[in-house]
Parts: sequence; structure tokens; C-alpha cells
Amino acid sequence: MHNFVFHNPTKILFGRGTIEAIGPETRAWGQRALLVSGQSSLKRSGLHDRIVASLLAAGIELTEHGGVRSNPLLSHVRQGIERARAHRAEVIVAAGGGSVIDTAKAIAAGVPVAHDVWKFFTGKKGVKATLPVTTVLTLAASGSEMNSGMVLTNDDTREKFGFGHRLLYPKVSILDPETTFTVPPDYTAYGAIDALSHVLEFYMTAADQDTPVQDRLMEGLIENSMAACDRCLRDPRDYHGRANLMWTATLAMGGLTAAGLGRVGFPMHLIEHSLSALHDVPHGAGLAVVMLGWLRAHQHNSAARIATLGRRVFRLAAAEPSDAAAQTIARFDAWLHSVQAPRTLSDLGIPAADIPRIAGNTRGLARVWRLADYTPERVAAILRLCLERGG
Amino acid sequence: MHNFVFHNPTKILFGRGTIEAIGPETRAWGQRALLVSGQSSLKRSGLHDRIVASLLAAGIELTEHGGVRSNPLLSHVRQGIERARAHRAEVIVAAGGGSVIDTAKAIAAGVPVAHDVWKFFTGKKGVKATLPVTTVLTLAASGSEMNSGMVLTNDDTREKFGFGHRLLYPKVSILDPETTFTVPPDYTAYGAIDALSHVLEFYMTAADQDTPVQDRLMEGLIENSMAACDRCLRDPRDYHGRANLMWTATLAMGGLTAAGLGRVGFPMHLIEHSLSALHDVPHGAGLAVVMLGWLRAHQHNSAARIATLGRRVFRLAAAEPSDAAAQTIARFDAWLHSVQAPRTLSDLGIPAADIPRIAGNTRGLARVWRLADYTPERVAAILRLCLERGG
Repeated sequence: MHNFVFHNPTKILFGRGTIEAIGPETRAWGQRALLVSGQSSLKRSGLHDRIVASLLAAGIELTEHGGVRSNPLLSHVRQGIERARAHRAEVIVAAGGGSVIDTAKAIAAGVPVAHDVWKFFTGKKGVKATLPVTTVLTLAASGSEMNSGMVLTNDDTREKFGFGHRLLYPKVSILDPETTFTVPPDYTAYGAIDALSHVLEFYMTAADQDTPVQDRLMEGLIENSMAACDRCLRDPRDYHGRANLMWTATLAMGGLTAAGLGRVGFPMHLIEHSLSALHDVPHGAGLAVVMLGWLRAHQHNSAARIATLGRRVFRLAAAEPSDAAAQTIARFDAWLHSVQAPRTLSDLGIPAADIPRIAGNTRGLARVWRLADYTPERVAAILRLCLERGG
Repeated sequence: MHNFVFHNPTKILFGRGTIEAIGPETRAWGQRALLVSGQSSLKRSGLHDRIVASLLAAGIELTEHGGVRSNPLLSHVRQGIERARAHRAEVIVAAGGGSVIDTAKAIAAGVPVAHDVWKFFTGKKGVKATLPVTTVLTLAASGSEMNSGMVLTNDDTREKFGFGHRLLYPKVSILDPETTFTVPPDYTAYGAIDALSHVLEFYMTAADQDTPVQDRLMEGLIENSMAACDRCLRDPRDYHGRANLMWTATLAMGGLTAAGLGRVGFPMHLIEHSLSALHDVPHGAGLAVVMLGWLRAHQHNSAARIATLGRRVFRLAAAEPSDAAAQTIARFDAWLHSVQAPRTLSDLGIPAADIPRIAGNTRGLARVWRLADYTPERVAAILRLCLERGG
């Protein structure tokens, strides 16, 4: 096990009927708030009204910054920063999924500084102070509700970069599984795939693999990403299925999986970000495709690791690592098929001719994320493994 | 999944060479400190000198309260409170295992109040403010380094009670596995048994058992309690074995296992506390014996749950729950035997004639912990199952 610091100070309120706590929990951090939200689904479900009512009842002076879209944009964050400053906001409230929470975090980081917020993402500036963030989560996927990271797309440069800072853990996150009853099947699956990928990526790239405590945790989360998703697809109003998926996704990116693994890489996210910055596909959809290609590219040199995963998660009996690894990838492929996720670039509507452009677009983020061994040539080779169905 | 609040704000510094951070990390919380420690082992190993040097180098004015013993005593806590007050301590530093950390927490709770600290343990008073606590852990066992609980023995009444409060999470805990290289085999095993019991007790008593996310986490921690212990017994200086055991024990009682289970009970701890308050046996040794008796008492009415545990942890193939449950208990028994832990009351030197007195001693804590269904008669029946070797 490698040395680590683990410090996740986010307070989680989990369960039915917890939404109305957002007012008092937010009031503890400030009196003037900016409420960040997405498109219209929050309003359609009535949740927006409940959140606003709770905030107002707690004595909060509120202004709103709605319209966050998936693959959230830097330009929209900049507008939010201006709005927060004009309102003299003391706290940022996010109500939505990972895109909304990421936008709220970026606004919270950008308000106190004179320079452009993108400089945090390119590593040219470091965070020293932020506004506090509170959240109401409405999608089980990114884990942003209990971590310090965020991802934005720069609409000028078409770069999709991520960064994190310990001051950007939400102070409080409210997770009511009932808010996800209305998430449609495709986005339910994309969320599960996102959670699964977060764990799988650490599991596969850990510098130290003598980490049985973390391994058993990660295998459990991978298993539950799939099992809970299956429940939610069978019955979208299965409370416990929604609850299991939500808590799985939160824990998948809450820091415990990575603590002790040493350096972990984000090669799948590197490729997916570069892909979805150019083609506006849902993050989980892009990850499904990239994950299969990436696993195939590592099927031989990481056979033992993939085999361990398959034996634990799918209870595979194959004795030979190469057999077990191949079966594991086939099982992931079959599961993605069963939840009707895309599995090839053409499922995403991306032609083979676009591979060089996507691969070239990984350069900037590979530099920031120190993945120098992921050259455009290597990325292109992985993307070619995403062209056809395996098995 | 039941509703829950999860908020564990303890900052963990884990790994080799982290001890010297105790000075600056403590200084962030106060300038005048009381250092709480145990018997002589800390001084023999040179660790005491390193901790004091780090604290002094950070500009801390230090006074000491040593001599904490296992099954720590209320009278010693009261002395510590007086010493902290005389020194006008602003922060309490614990250097040791669970007994030392529990003592430090109780001192931190007792200093600010005019009433006796025991009133917190009997539920007659509630905590409103505490001094901050920082810790250097030297034994993988109780998990006190990352939770809000503590256990003390009242030397007047021979009651061993536990309580917890959210203000009593340590602010910082430093976990260097090398500090446990010198823990002898018996106490290494007792620590692992303590960790295993913490998880097993929640696993078995959870009000809600539709909790696959938590179940997979718990099964992994139970498996690793045993696997890591085995490594440490084979080679006491196996860094990764010590690291896996330490992190397992911390996570076993860090709150994540219980979050979402609804009400959990502590019946094994209830019985063990009542036993070790009368017979001064190590906590882990007492738990080993009680655990086997308690499992046997529940072998039939909880067969399905015990079977699931055994299939996951021991990869048992038995199809019938009753068979799998019996095999699971036999496997725990065999593992305890392999690590030379006591498995019967007579292994602990406790005669059958003492059962009524131990069972009677559960009354007070059963009331505080709301385990009314654990009558002295029922406890005595469980203790009788601890008289003879099973299987």
C-alpha cells in the first residue's frame, strides 16, 4: 500500500424526505446564495419548487443560474461567476447531476479570484480560497457530490479538462434516491457505467496492486454498479435499486477506492473527454465504448488483473488468466449490451475517419494529467479497437 | 437501504514516515497540549521521543498523561481531565491504541463541563463542546482513530460502557503501519478479531438487509481482517500485511459499514464488555469467545445471512443455508484456532459458575444501548454456548 492522505469532509444526508434539509444546511454556510441547476427536468418534477421553498424558508436570499447542460461549458461557468458576484453570493447551491455540481464548484472557485477560472484547469493557477458549495443530487453517476473534482469543456478550444482541490468538497450533499425515479433508462445506464468506469480505471491503473482492502471494496462497487442498474431498469421506481445505485456511484468516486493505490491514471477518461469534447455524446455512453476498447488493448499485458476482477465480480471459474480475462471482457460487453448502451464508435455515430482528430485532441489533457505514454498514436490504436464488436 | 447521515471529518495521514506530521497537525488546533499515552511500549520503541520532538518543534507546550491500560479506567480519565485543566490544554494528543484514544476522547469531552464525565456514558448528559483530539495510532484494532466513539470501565461500579458524539471524531489521525511491527502475535490477532467483530456485528444485526453495497464492503473487510492478520503473524515486519490490517481495522469502524443499515445492535460487545469489566481479559480475546457462542445461538434463525457471508468470504459451495451457515461458523472457529485465540470461556480462565454474574452485569449497558431483548437469561444461554468447543 502506498502512503496517502484521506480527508473527505462532505456531510451526506441520504434517503427519502431529506430534500427539505437543503435550506437550513445551506444557511449554516451563508445567507446569500446562487442556485445552480440544469435544464427543465428539475422544474417538471416539482423538485425545483421544493428546493427554492426550503432555501427561502431558511432565510436565504436567492438568485438563480439555470441551464447547465451535460458536458458543461466554461462560458456558462463564467456567466455564473458574474452572476454570483453581482448577487454577492456567499454560498453556491447545486441542484442536479454531476454537470450541475461541477459547474457550481467551478463558480465557487472562480468567484474569489481576479483571473479566469480556466487557469485552474490548465494548472496555471492554484486554488487558495473558494465559496462553500451545498448540493441536492438528482443523478447517480459522477460522484461529484462527495469529491473535490470537476470537469468542464472549454467551448473556445474544445478541450474537456478536469481538476480538483481539497477546498471544493461540497460541505453538504443531499441524496434522495426518489429524485432519480424519473431518470430515463439510457441515462440510468450511463450513470451506472460512469460509476463502474471510475472504479475500473483505478483498479486497472493502480501503481500498487498489493491492496486487497481497496480491491475488495472496488470489486463490490463494480458488481453493484451493474446489479443496481439492472434493478432500476426493471423497475424505475424500485427505491432500494435507486438507493444502491446512488450510494455506489457516490462511493465510486469518494476517494476511498484510490487511497493507498499510489498514482492512478485516467486513460479511459482522457480518451472519452477528448471524444465528447468533439462529439457531444453523453459521458457514460462514450465511456462504455472506450472502456471495451481500452480493456481489449490491455487484455494480454494485464491479464492477471482482469482475471482477478472477473473471478470476484462474475465468479468466473477459468483457471488460466488469459481465459478469465477474455471472459471478463466478454461479460462487460454482454452487460453493456443488456442495458442497451453503445459499444462501438459507430453506435455513437462516430466514423472511423474521425479517429485521428479525437486522438490528436488528447494531447493537451494528457500533458495536464501527466499521461505522456498516451500518445495520439497509442490512443488511435485503442480507438480502432472500439470500431467493432468484440467476442 | 435506510436513511442515514454520514459525516466522517477525520483527516487520515497513512504510511511510512508520517509520524513527524503530528507536531504541525496538532499545532493547527491549539498551542497547549496534553499528550495521552499507555504503558511503556511507546517509550521502548523510541516512538514517544519522536512524537514529543515533533510536538515541541511545532511550538507546542506539552504536558503528559501516561499510563493508560487496556480496558481503560474512568478514574484515570478523571485524573487526565484535572491534568488538562491545570495545564489549560487546548488540544488532546493520543499516542497509542484504542484504549489511549478512547481515554483522550473522554478527557476532551470532560474538560469543558462541570459535571462528571461518566454522565455522558450513562446518557444523563449530552455533549455540547469538546477539545479537539489528534492521534498517532500504534495498534490496528478498535477503529477509534476514525470514529466518534469510546469505551470506558467505571472502576467503582465495574460497568464497561461506550458512547459517541459527532464532536469527538479525531481531527487528524496518523497511521504508520511500521509502529505496529512490534505488536506481539496475540495482540495482533486480538486486534484483527476486534475489527472482524465490528463488521460482523453490523452485518448480522442490520435492521435492513437489502444493502448489497454495504454487504460487499463488509465481506471484504471481514476477509481482510483474517488475511492481513495471517500475513502479520507469518512475518511481523511485513509492511503491507501491517498496512492492510491497519486500514481494515480503521474502515471496519469508520461509519461506512453501518451507513444505511438502519439500527444495528452491539450484542456481542454488550456481552464482552460485561465479561471484561469483571475479568480483565483483552477485548479481542473476549470477543473471539463471545462471537462463536453468539453465532451458534443464531445459527438457525439467521442461517441465510450467515450462509451468504460464508459463500462470499470463504467461497463455500454448500447450497443449503443451514449447511453453509454451519460451515461458516466452523471456518471462523478454525481461523481463531489457527491464530491461537481463545475460543471458550475456560480458555479465558472463566469458570461456568461465573456465567450468572457476567450475564447480570449486562443489565446496565443493555438499557443504555437499548438491547432490552438481551435479558440476563438470554445472555446466560449464549454464554453457555461459549463453554465448549464447537464442531
